[in-house]
Amino acid sequence: MILTLTPNPALDLTYRIDALQPGETHRVSAGPARAGGKGINVARVLHTQGFPVRAVLTAGGATGAQVVADLQESGIAHEAVPVGSPTRRTIAVVEDGDGTTTLLSESGAALSEDERARLHAAVQSPLPIASCLVISGSLPAGFPPEEIAAMVASSRSRGIPVIVDTSGPALLAAAAAGADLLKPNAAELAEATGERDLAAGAQALLDLGADTVLVSLGEEGMLAAHSASAWTRAALPRVLRGNPTGAGDAGVAAAAMLLAQGAPTAADLLRAATSWSAAAVLMPLAGEISRTHRELAVEVALHPYPDSEERP
Amino acid sequence: MILTLTPNPALDLTYRIDALQPGETHRVSAGPARAGGKGINVARVLHTQGFPVRAVLTAGGATGAQVVADLQESGIAHEAVPVGSPTRRTIAVVEDGDGTTTLLSESGAALSEDERARLHAAVQSPLPIASCLVISGSLPAGFPPEEIAAMVASSRSRGIPVIVDTSGPALLAAAAAGADLLKPNAAELAEATGERDLAAGAQALLDLGADTVLVSLGEEGMLAAHSASAWTRAALPRVLRGNPTGAGDAGVAAAAMLLAQGAPTAADLLRAATSWSAAAVLMPLAGEISRTHRELAVEVALHPYPDSEERP
Repeated sequence: MILTLTPNPALDLTYRIDALQPGETHRVSAGPARAGGKGINVARVLHTQGFPVRAVLTAGGATGAQVVADLQESGIAHEAVPVGSPTRRTIAVVEDGDGTTTLLSESGAALSEDERARLHAAVQSPLPIASCLVISGSLPAGFPPEEIAAMVASSRSRGIPVIVDTSGPALLAAAAAGADLLKPNAAELAEATGERDLAAGAQALLDLGADTVLVSLGEEGMLAAHSASAWTRAALPRVLRGNPTGAGDAGVAAAAMLLAQGAPTAADLLRAATSWSAAAVLMPLAGEISRTHRELAVEVALHPYPDSEERP
Repeated sequence: MILTLTPNPALDLTYRIDALQPGETHRVSAGPARAGGKGINVARVLHTQGFPVRAVLTAGGATGAQVVADLQESGIAHEAVPVGSPTRRTIAVVEDGDGTTTLLSESGAALSEDERARLHAAVQSPLPIASCLVISGSLPAGFPPEEIAAMVASSRSRGIPVIVDTSGPALLAAAAAGADLLKPNAAELAEATGERDLAAGAQALLDLGADTVLVSLGEEGMLAAHSASAWTRAALPRVLRGNPTGAGDAGVAAAAMLLAQGAPTAADLLRAATSWSAAAVLMPLAGEISRTHRELAVEVALHPYPDSEERP
């Protein structure tokens, strides 16, 4: 069972419109209202691909009740820690045609010390039977990075691989605690490490203690940087059009699947993460991947990094 | 007690942001989630001004539960008819600075015949003790205009004044049923009557059977057209900046207050409706009016319509 933690889940509302015109009134159909947040997206992808999962999250207020109802309806095993503040919403407005997506993302309310302790316990309790722990997404206001580090260390001490996909000080804390895999995008990597250069940023996280850093590069694929082996960049030879929301989460889901089964090669890791990511772009909602991911995996091209093109 | 019917209520979400940029991600604070829809806005204005009200509406799903919870918290007497489909949402994105407001307005799901019958009963039951009936806002998909006409006729037959603020065929049906006051804006008037000319459109509704047509003209104030007396236009001598959402509803609330007390003069009606409308523009959320409405009422200028300026 792959255990996912979503410290700052959301009720995701999605609307499709012709074109978003600031200042105007847009008549829209009521779109889907789904449980969201990166860890839940990871759990959804794994669940729909037939892998056993357990999603740990917080839930508060009417929006939290809707998140829990959606997880139940989706059949995703979960434990929702009740909290006092309402679960936040995200609102995605997707334009027909080119799929331009405008997002309003509410910040999550702070958790009390007691709520944080219960969230920690909700992760600890099933951890002994987990094959991988995934901690994904933003943190509520005031959430101490040390608590993420403590979860990473606890999982590592049991020999259970840990993936962390977050940003800022918590990303650094997860690296220092020895996370098996970190998955920042290029902007998050630069922001957390202060290194403008991609390679320098990845190296900084490896130096702190991370084993592998997978940097998602959007249309340009992914870079896998390792502490003990050569680096590799993966990309599809063509650009896919669609909805990039949740593409990174699908890549994390693929990595979790492989780490849960043992120590994957860099090539296997990149091929799976890149193809699941790309297969997510082809689907309208976060947490789903297209059945074509197997065909896409064959298309993934792997290059040493830096290769001749990337040398100055 | 003033009775309001909101056939198509909404959960209104409001976000304040710097500037809405299509294609971008915007971090926002969780804003207010309030009971909305024109009839509820009218009830809220009257309630906050100290007039007894009763708001009749439908409510379904988690969003309907949030609408009812907000009405309870606001202390607005209400009867929510339970329906199967979730209550719709509206999402308002208000930009700091000039207050540019972008609206996403979900269409409401159709009601079953049984649900419509229960909504009708929820209006009929308190009607004998009402001093005025206000039917306000859009109709759910497939709602027969004849049912609005039947409510108007039922109220008229008891000598209870009726105000209808809706659009399309239901506006025409309300006129034909002898509504005391209709409150379209200029675009709704043109769309419903097929008359591009303001005066011709208002005259068409009077010819159908309405007693008074109050046409809201935005910054240019209001026109009051009567079947049996001279027409008058009212305006403030200055333009107020703010949030126009709910301004028309505040005008309807003022008209309901006066109709509930007897047959107002055109001057009293216009002065109250224009000043409450303007006072709503000064407030951040629909359903509230500024305390300055008394000062604004003194500023309202009344002109015969058409006056010399408006003659060709």
